Amino acid sequence: MLAKPYSLAVRAVIRNEHGHCLLLRRANACKRFVGRWELPGGKMDPGETFDAALRREVTEETGLSVEVLGVAGAFGFEMEKVRVATLCMETAVIGGTFALSEEHDKHAWIPMAQLLDYDLTDGWSDLARSWAARG
Amino acid sequence: MLAKPYSLAVRAVIRNEHGHCLLLRRANACKRFVGRWELPGGKMDPGETFDAALRREVTEETGLSVEVLGVAGAFGFEMEKVRVATLCMETAVIGGTFALSEEHDKHAWIPMAQLLDYDLTDGWSDLARSWAARG
Repeated sequence: MLAKPYSLAVRAVIRNEHGHCLLLRRANACKRFVGRWELPGGKMDPGETFDAALRREVTEETGLSVEVLGVAGAFGFEMEKVRVATLCMETAVIGGTFALSEEHDKHAWIPMAQLLDYDLTDGWSDLARSWAARG
Repeated sequence: MLAKPYSLAVRAVIRNEHGHCLLLRRANACKRFVGRWELPGGKMDPGETFDAALRREVTEETGLSVEVLGVAGAFGFEMEKVRVATLCMETAVIGGTFALSEEHDKHAWIPMAQLLDYDLTDGWSDLARSWAARG
């Protein structure tokens, strides 16, 4: 059997002035992971660079403009037909007005040490634990 | 001042039957990091998917064919004109005959706990430390 194909996604760690991290809760409109919490981000479009994809997804999902500061980590998870590798980047807000899209129904700014208190989407609890340990 | 642009690279964790990880030493022919040790891999070509890029780079640099097993981690580093985000993937050898390219002059299979004994290329000593801690 051939292995499932891989796709690549990017997600943003966005922190406020207290160092708390922005989490978004997936709305009923979502096909999967309804009610679970995730970082802003998503899949790269064909031909799109990963940092352009990251800025686009963040703006679509939060209204915010961000610049990319550095690499925060990576995680993987499997869906029915595809495996997804997700690269997480530290970012800083440089503009925009906060507004959720239809994909999410709630947001929260969470101290890194409390990320694991939330029902996170698949694949990144180990990464969140490592961030929590680092503070 | 505008931030430096980002590029994306992929590197492979290839382990032998003892769980030791393949490191390659950069040859004098390299423009930078001569004599320092790295994982097989490199930059994605335009339009190339990251897993195709990974398989291509591994074959170019080691002669081996690999399949991608999962996400091993990520790291970043800066060069003069560009920042590089590198996604590292766990892989398994599925074929090929080992042969170095001109880019490297030596190879070694290293227990994860000893990776930090080597003069690693920029950016991934923290990641190597986390792998060493996990064993």
